[in-house]
Amino acid sequence: MFITQSFRRAVQVGGSRTATVDGVDRRTWNEVGRRVRSLAKGLSDLGVHSGDRVAVLSLNSARYLEAYYAIFWLGAACVPLNARWSVDELAYGLTDSEPTILLCDDAHFEIASQLRQRCPGVRHLILMADRPSPGGGVLAYEALAGAGHDIDAPVVPGETMAMICYTGGTTGRSKGVMLSHLNLWSSAIAFGNDIRDLTRDTSRTLNVMPLFHSGGVLPVLTTVIGAGCNVFLPSFLPQTFLQTLEDEKITHTSIVPTMVRMILDSIGERKRDLSALKVMVYGAAPMSQAQAEEAMEKLPGVDLQHGYGQTELAPYVSTLRPEYHVLNGPGSGKLRSIGKVGYCSEAYIADSDGKELPRGEVGELRVRGPHVMLGYWRKPKETAATIDNGWIRTGDAGYMDEEGFVFLIDRLKDMIVSGGENIYSSEVENALATHPAIATAVVIGIPNERWGEAVHAVVMLREGHQATAEEIINHCHGLIAGYKCPRSLEFRSDPFPVSGAGKILKRELRMPYWAGRNSALV
Amino acid sequence: MFITQSFRRAVQVGGSRTATVDGVDRRTWNEVGRRVRSLAKGLSDLGVHSGDRVAVLSLNSARYLEAYYAIFWLGAACVPLNARWSVDELAYGLTDSEPTILLCDDAHFEIASQLRQRCPGVRHLILMADRPSPGGGVLAYEALAGAGHDIDAPVVPGETMAMICYTGGTTGRSKGVMLSHLNLWSSAIAFGNDIRDLTRDTSRTLNVMPLFHSGGVLPVLTTVIGAGCNVFLPSFLPQTFLQTLEDEKITHTSIVPTMVRMILDSIGERKRDLSALKVMVYGAAPMSQAQAEEAMEKLPGVDLQHGYGQTELAPYVSTLRPEYHVLNGPGSGKLRSIGKVGYCSEAYIADSDGKELPRGEVGELRVRGPHVMLGYWRKPKETAATIDNGWIRTGDAGYMDEEGFVFLIDRLKDMIVSGGENIYSSEVENALATHPAIATAVVIGIPNERWGEAVHAVVMLREGHQATAEEIINHCHGLIAGYKCPRSLEFRSDPFPVSGAGKILKRELRMPYWAGRNSALV
Repeated sequence: MFITQSFRRAVQVGGSRTATVDGVDRRTWNEVGRRVRSLAKGLSDLGVHSGDRVAVLSLNSARYLEAYYAIFWLGAACVPLNARWSVDELAYGLTDSEPTILLCDDAHFEIASQLRQRCPGVRHLILMADRPSPGGGVLAYEALAGAGHDIDAPVVPGETMAMICYTGGTTGRSKGVMLSHLNLWSSAIAFGNDIRDLTRDTSRTLNVMPLFHSGGVLPVLTTVIGAGCNVFLPSFLPQTFLQTLEDEKITHTSIVPTMVRMILDSIGERKRDLSALKVMVYGAAPMSQAQAEEAMEKLPGVDLQHGYGQTELAPYVSTLRPEYHVLNGPGSGKLRSIGKVGYCSEAYIADSDGKELPRGEVGELRVRGPHVMLGYWRKPKETAATIDNGWIRTGDAGYMDEEGFVFLIDRLKDMIVSGGENIYSSEVENALATHPAIATAVVIGIPNERWGEAVHAVVMLREGHQATAEEIINHCHGLIAGYKCPRSLEFRSDPFPVSGAGKILKRELRMPYWAGRNSALV
Repeated sequence: MFITQSFRRAVQVGGSRTATVDGVDRRTWNEVGRRVRSLAKGLSDLGVHSGDRVAVLSLNSARYLEAYYAIFWLGAACVPLNARWSVDELAYGLTDSEPTILLCDDAHFEIASQLRQRCPGVRHLILMADRPSPGGGVLAYEALAGAGHDIDAPVVPGETMAMICYTGGTTGRSKGVMLSHLNLWSSAIAFGNDIRDLTRDTSRTLNVMPLFHSGGVLPVLTTVIGAGCNVFLPSFLPQTFLQTLEDEKITHTSIVPTMVRMILDSIGERKRDLSALKVMVYGAAPMSQAQAEEAMEKLPGVDLQHGYGQTELAPYVSTLRPEYHVLNGPGSGKLRSIGKVGYCSEAYIADSDGKELPRGEVGELRVRGPHVMLGYWRKPKETAATIDNGWIRTGDAGYMDEEGFVFLIDRLKDMIVSGGENIYSSEVENALATHPAIATAVVIGIPNERWGEAVHAVVMLREGHQATAEEIINHCHGLIAGYKCPRSLEFRSDPFPVSGAGKILKRELRMPYWAGRNSALV
């Protein structure tokens, strides 16, 4: 039921309309329906039962969608592996989740072959490619999906686990979030309710966010609910992305802020017809006013909409709707907000005891609803620390205004406690960002004997600009209270480490400073 | 969770916006939130626990909405009693569902007092009126809802029963459909996805369909999900309805075909500003082409949308979207269809063994999804006969076209088998309806020794028109095959018996003919 039911409905009403576009491959709903059933039969013949895990290691592709639904069909759980992980991290994911089968694309065939050696529990490797099996016991995806086999649709209860989705990117500490059929369905249908015309059979969604991330899966599932068309790109290149928007008459797409920046920088290069595009959802972080202005000017007629989520919530939590992307008038003043919580979410701002705080006061955002994860895979202690009486502790600090808009200020873990004062790293970052020489500034707390923590800045300069640490810290003193200003500053030229969702991983910056202290802050 | 969670979200984000309008009473979301919590506390103090039943006997009102959510809040089940039922039928409903508390409005106070005498299990009677308690142990609703008491929100699992909704209207045969929190929520959010802009906080929904019917509850729940405003009318009077549409700037409303007819007849009497109205959903039966043309002309700019449902499916099943309410062009040819199944439904057309039939062939519509009822209250045999491997047997005969549109032809029980031939009563009714003297024609099967069943017509003539049975039957012979034409015909001047959803109850017409035969056809 739930997500598999919505897939079968899509096949039934979609029929000969296009379901997936992946490069030159275009398939109808009838074809995708046949392929998913045939692949499900193939996996079933390989011994996959309800409750088993099947891992996927691949860039975005139409086959990835088929694999998801074939695994869902059987009541098994898909383990989408982070394609940016190292071999050690991937081996950790496989050892932890114990899938019997690994599917990989051509780009990951070599690494998958190594993994198969290291993880003997993985009994079969399936190559998601056009080519036949290269031998060595490797199975060809097309031999399964294209075989035309059929299989009945079992009744899969809503609480059945459908996915194990790993959060974070560091071996040992990465937790497998267990999401059920009901979790994914309720999140997707609530998202569909909030994004104009997304669940229509005329929708054409461009998927460039990685499918191993819950934020990449959400628009795919929602588009399937509406029997629309999913278009896939294996990676994000601004010109290819823009060309695909135009060529495929894309109506909806979801991206992260770094992609917005690159799109806005690239869009002027040639005149494009983006008249089909209705909504561009941006995740991970709100937009600055300057960027919103630029986006409205360069993408006229396109609704900008912010989506906030968390894997533990499958992942849809809240949205800032298009009518609040205005600089004047009744909808203004909300641009830095993550909006109101979505139709499957109930939320409040909690003090450190879990009690509700008055509107406007800063505390932790807690969320519950039918999308609350089943728990962390084989980590009952971590599950108990995250789910409190049914509420997910998001770890995000913020406040709610009188109208129910939520403004996030910082990750709780990124909040710095120095000399007994709470310092929001984002406030310091905003002060740093006004310095003309700075491209990116990240602020973390580092151990300090006297203050507990001290404010430390990691700064990347703009190309061709120069500044000293002293100059930059002095610049901050003109903008924020002295105790909030960085005590120390380092320059960085390498790109910052980012998560699958495009967020900078502060814990990786903190790690060298806190090593050996086993701190909850890392 | 689910429906109570959506209510709490609505209170939180709705705040000082209007939540309910009922005559001169207007309440904000904050007020309704406080009143529901206070009423829930009052019911809890009267001994209502999770799993208990609380009955309501009332015309539509804002208090009815509050009662629903207060009962949901406790994890108890609301038993909305059919306000058109006789005392005997109501006593049957109370004896069958065993509520401990009965809430009634002023219009039903006398009958409720009688019922309290007859059903000693009903320990408390609560009068939903402005006035204080009239004594005699009767409690005043306002003393509970207005007391300002508070109560925590328990975690109510999705499978918890939220409603027992009686189908049909005949004592003894009436079955209590048990609907869960998940049933109602999934139906409402899928409905919300399919009705343009319904789940927006700017929506203003006019509720004139009775709140004791699942079709009347659906738009209320969906509007609550969106934190919109629910406006109530206690009964349907065309001029009052039209006046309210205008005065309250109504954006959405759901009605039945008889109401559509009365609205279209009344709308010309004075010029009205209905510019706020976005969507008019009509349930129970598709529109004729002539009526659709008339409606499009008289309600320009209003989206007409057909909704098909069944109480056993909480109740949303399918919709014919506005773009198919056209007489020419790509969307045409679907007007007689109930549309495609909604986002929470999976459906197929079954032969008598339950196997899927090819597109275009007539069989029984079967539906499943998260909205499939828990079962019939204390009727396991009837439940087992209706739910087959998770699929609801709708009892509706029809076919599905290549694009997934479902066309219903007849109730299975209304199909007449005469001399081994299947005769669809609706086809005979359509032939009769073309006779200029006929206002309404209903066709049923009656016992016949030679043919098993014989086609019998019950006809109401237009005012001022005359025709003989022979003339009318001869008229049919010019239009349909001889074996389909009525063998007998009776004239009727009383209104036809109708269900809460406005459907003509054929079984009541059949009953006198089949009495004593204990036939499944009645």
